[in-house]
Amino acid sequence: MAVVAGIDIGGTNIEGAIVDDDHSVGDSVKVPTPTEGPEAVAEAIKGLLEELGAEVDGIGVGIPGPVNAGVVTTPPNLEGWQKSVNLKALLATTLEIPVEVGNDVNVAVLGEWSAGAGKGSQNLLGVWMGTGIGGGLILGGRPYNGTTGHAGEFGHMIVRPGGAQCGCGHRGCIEAYAGRNSMEDTARRAVDGGAASTTLFSIMEDKGKDRATSSVWVKALKNEDALAVRLFGEAVEAVAVGIASVMSLLDLDRVVIGGGLAEKMGEELVERLWAAVEPHCFVPMDSVEFVVAGLEDYSGIVGAAALGRAGLLLGG
Amino acid sequence: MAVVAGIDIGGTNIEGAIVDDDHSVGDSVKVPTPTEGPEAVAEAIKGLLEELGAEVDGIGVGIPGPVNAGVVTTPPNLEGWQKSVNLKALLATTLEIPVEVGNDVNVAVLGEWSAGAGKGSQNLLGVWMGTGIGGGLILGGRPYNGTTGHAGEFGHMIVRPGGAQCGCGHRGCIEAYAGRNSMEDTARRAVDGGAASTTLFSIMEDKGKDRATSSVWVKALKNEDALAVRLFGEAVEAVAVGIASVMSLLDLDRVVIGGGLAEKMGEELVERLWAAVEPHCFVPMDSVEFVVAGLEDYSGIVGAAALGRAGLLLGG
Repeated sequence: MAVVAGIDIGGTNIEGAIVDDDHSVGDSVKVPTPTEGPEAVAEAIKGLLEELGAEVDGIGVGIPGPVNAGVVTTPPNLEGWQKSVNLKALLATTLEIPVEVGNDVNVAVLGEWSAGAGKGSQNLLGVWMGTGIGGGLILGGRPYNGTTGHAGEFGHMIVRPGGAQCGCGHRGCIEAYAGRNSMEDTARRAVDGGAASTTLFSIMEDKGKDRATSSVWVKALKNEDALAVRLFGEAVEAVAVGIASVMSLLDLDRVVIGGGLAEKMGEELVERLWAAVEPHCFVPMDSVEFVVAGLEDYSGIVGAAALGRAGLLLGG
Repeated sequence: MAVVAGIDIGGTNIEGAIVDDDHSVGDSVKVPTPTEGPEAVAEAIKGLLEELGAEVDGIGVGIPGPVNAGVVTTPPNLEGWQKSVNLKALLATTLEIPVEVGNDVNVAVLGEWSAGAGKGSQNLLGVWMGTGIGGGLILGGRPYNGTTGHAGEFGHMIVRPGGAQCGCGHRGCIEAYAGRNSMEDTARRAVDGGAASTTLFSIMEDKGKDRATSSVWVKALKNEDALAVRLFGEAVEAVAVGIASVMSLLDLDRVVIGGGLAEKMGEELVERLWAAVEPHCFVPMDSVEFVVAGLEDYSGIVGAAALGRAGLLLGG
């Protein structure tokens, strides 16, 4: 049986592990993401594979940015990357093994569909709630990447035209209300402007974090911090309006919620979203399952490995 | 070569024609839609086929309502229909020929994709602007109908949560701003409440219409009627926000605008929409074509015939 590794490139770390063809994940290795650009990232992945200590036949890679036929276009959270990089070709040359590359959230959704909470679905929306809001789709029983590999930008669907400023430059995007970075910025502006007080930033300091992570938000919500409760309510509403619209457009059979916030909050988050979707949803909700991602941190590694194994099988 | 007819069931009329396998449409026949329910509609289609004066080998049918495997669920604009009707089986029994059935807008989009403005597209959104706002999708190079045949409800995507009341019972749907029936109701409320005056209703009377049709709106817009201009602007904005969101989610290569308003306004409508999409759109717009439906009134008949011919070929 071919030995395949799944690699998850993030803004901070690159994580990888050997994944069996039954999708079980071996011990993972984490290395810092180099800031010197694609060649350095390729070398870091080479080192990571050596640390895994096995002869790897092929790999799959998830990366935060649009991917089309192995070409990555301006990944917004990676330093030192030009406009367009053929990462598939670069890694294949560096590693001398077959490589497949996909967008990180699309790959995580593929992982959940292959081995997690998405198993058996024909028409699935994955919503990944983290520093930003990502999305991925399975449509007609197969992964859907769109015309240029950009599909799944759920976080930049517009739920309030002319509303809150989003990091992307537009207004009223889902991410402007529900992305953790946007929520933190909104909280900071409210506090700086004297309009509100909050325990968010003291919790952050207590935990030794320099950003308001999911665990910081969960603690503030548990404390019934009024500002955190309000901003979290707006986040849930924005995501729910988007999910309802996608359900009306695509007649889904499943919605999978993943990412840092889903890992921390689990079923509670799914129940909050379900209740908030209902008032906006045109199609019957009883044929749609709402579930939390089942592979936790490993959705991306499992999906990347599935992609890598498929590439090996096709002999591409 | 098999002789196939395309049949378009509407709330007022049923229209049908023989369509060649190069998608050219013969003389069409129109009969009033019976209000006594499915059996009467089947008999009316039988009469229509006799009027066409040819031995028909198979038909395809478009009907305004969700369709799954030939079963039509509660078509909102047809009188005398129960919750679920297997129209495919009923017509096959009545007519003794193979029958395929699809949702009317999905079928019209199929027509445009097969022979009109959608030709060659892999990932297409069709937006049909009429009494309501319909939608249809081609994804991954094939028609997309969703899990239960409800896919394409573009008109019930939410663009202003808590906004205008829609006929569907929800608030802030695209159709609540851009469906011709909603626009007429809004205009009437504004006039009745003394908040505005308009030439819409006198144009309607002059034209001998009992509803504000597309041609009534076009005339009022030409007259620079202030209320018509404002409501039409809100309609364009609502549709544009929805299109931008779908482009971000699905990374389309084409958007086709059809329905009564597109027939009357043509390129002008497409240009208005394109300009209004741009400020909301996350993905690059240069890889997406915006076009007017090319088959005018016959999208539905051509698409229905294509469906019928496919059914004959499959021997289902």
